[in-house]
Amino acid sequence: MGFAKSFFTAEPTDPTGLVAKTERRVRFEEVDMLGIVWHGHYVSFLDDGRVALGDRFPALSYARMKEEEMAAPIVQLHIDYQAPLVFDDLMLIETTLHWTDALRLNFSYQISRADGRLAIKAYTVQLFTDLKGAVLLIPPVWIEEFRQQWKTGMLV
Amino acid sequence: MGFAKSFFTAEPTDPTGLVAKTERRVRFEEVDMLGIVWHGHYVSFLDDGRVALGDRFPALSYARMKEEEMAAPIVQLHIDYQAPLVFDDLMLIETTLHWTDALRLNFSYQISRADGRLAIKAYTVQLFTDLKGAVLLIPPVWIEEFRQQWKTGMLV
Amino acid sequence: MGFAKSFFTAEPTDPTGLVAKTERRVRFEEVDMLGIVWHGHYVSFLDDGRVALGDRFPALSYARMKEEEMAAPIVQLHIDYQAPLVFDDLMLIETTLHWTDALRLNFSYQISRADGRLAIKAYTVQLFTDLKGAVLLIPPVWIEEFRQQWKTGMLV
Amino acid sequence: MGFAKSFFTAEPTDPTGLVAKTERRVRFEEVDMLGIVWHGHYVSFLDDGRVALGDRFPALSYARMKEEEMAAPIVQLHIDYQAPLVFDDLMLIETTLHWTDALRLNFSYQISRADGRLAIKAYTVQLFTDLKGAVLLIPPVWIEEFRQQWKTGMLV
Repeated sequence: MGFAKSFFTAEPTDPTGLVAKTERRVRFEEVDMLGIVWHGHYVSFLDDGRVALGDRFPALSYARMKEEEMAAPIVQLHIDYQAPLVFDDLMLIETTLHWTDALRLNFSYQISRADGRLAIKAYTVQLFTDLKGAVLLIPPVWIEEFRQQWKTGMLV
Repeated sequence: MGFAKSFFTAEPTDPTGLVAKTERRVRFEEVDMLGIVWHGHYVSFLDDGRVALGDRFPALSYARMKEEEMAAPIVQLHIDYQAPLVFDDLMLIETTLHWTDALRLNFSYQISRADGRLAIKAYTVQLFTDLKGAVLLIPPVWIEEFRQQWKTGMLV
Repeated sequence: MGFAKSFFTAEPTDPTGLVAKTERRVRFEEVDMLGIVWHGHYVSFLDDGRVALGDRFPALSYARMKEEEMAAPIVQLHIDYQAPLVFDDLMLIETTLHWTDALRLNFSYQISRADGRLAIKAYTVQLFTDLKGAVLLIPPVWIEEFRQQWKTGMLV
Repeated sequence: MGFAKSFFTAEPTDPTGLVAKTERRVRFEEVDMLGIVWHGHYVSFLDDGRVALGDRFPALSYARMKEEEMAAPIVQLHIDYQAPLVFDDLMLIETTLHWTDALRLNFSYQISRADGRLAIKAYTVQLFTDLKGAVLLIPPVWIEEFRQQWKTGMLV
């Protein structure tokens, strides 16, 4: 995904990104008076993408965060809009978690219509915090284990 | 307010309802592809009405509930739609808390456009619970005090 | 459904209601600071219910309305909240269109959790209008045909 | 605003940006289960900022776009989250329209809490289209007039 590559600089030796795909259908309430999905609703579509990845890799799920008494707030959000979705469109949400040596979550996204036309490209960056919002500087053991599995190719 | 009266049966000796008025302007994102405010957004407008009452009477505010480690979940919601609001309409939200001997909050609402035309009438019913969701059966002292002030005409 | 029966008075000879079931999973953004789904989001869940019925019976779909240059605005909404949904709950939305001789759409709804516990009961009433919002007083031919099919048992 | 400068490259001779300020109070429904405003709601806050600019400079308002049978869809959105807003926070939304020789709208935003602490920095880019979504390549007369007024210092 050239778009994300240019944002999230990757080393040739970095493990391949983790990918999940999910679908969602545009709701009536999501469409504005111009007949297209209001640009703010795409943020919710990206959430669905991360949930789909959490379903594939439970270490990335909200449930696991909660269990560990941690949070992963979004600190950066970027969306490039290509072509609007309209009412009742079935969209495909493709989400990739990119490897990084830093203690953060770098996601990129592509949302397409059923006919394959690209609707948006996007990325988000998340940090890890405790429940009071203090940023974690040292990775917890369970995250280190997840990264180790990823690095050794056990997750693909 | 005949509408609410017919729902919330009132005794002639009941204290007068507590009233607050507030304004809100329709946002672009609240308007649907037919050019009118999507019916679900009115629930948010009603929230603004209750917040306005909490601003006038702090005992009814969310801040006070939190301080007392209580919640007041909505158990009933009813909206009669009369005439649609459109983009950029300035609406007037009138909210009334009706007296009841029961341990609950009975609100009625009227939302009108700037030209006076009625957009919706509505009512909600809330119970009091602890933070685990268990319904309170005996009124806390601070609520009793508030009701006493209301009954003796100290709140109008 | 006793709840809806008591609201939408039915004659013994009325045709049976048309029913659709669909599922939806609670999103992170739908949960409030008390850890339960904010009461206003249920209006969107009801929309999903009507869409599911439109999928089963295309005459009831938004696409058909648009094709006929008509709208079916909601004029009444009522929700009774029974037990809160929480994050990641899978809900079952059961929607029933009730027969009426009047030119309107009377829907009732039940939303339950996966364990069968009832979350809400609700009903909505819709009128038919042209695209300028004028209420239709005489049923269009295609609606009459749909009602005829329903009455003669061709839709179950 | 160094943040926006680094994004929207500006020539020393460019006219100063057009600025508007507005306030908004965090609603209960905008706060998530971690007690902070859900990151997606900030997109709505940015909309309020653009509306405030349209109130100051009617040529930038949605009403004017509609009158001219044009639209200005957002093609890029970027948000840097600094510190979370919480329930009932009063926020100040500062919006700047930056000069560009290109036929687009380059906005930057800063949202702060009442105590001055920065919550987010953001920018958006909009193109001009007709109502069918075709991008305008030649500026309409009324936009040229607005830019001329801006360039000659008549708008500050």
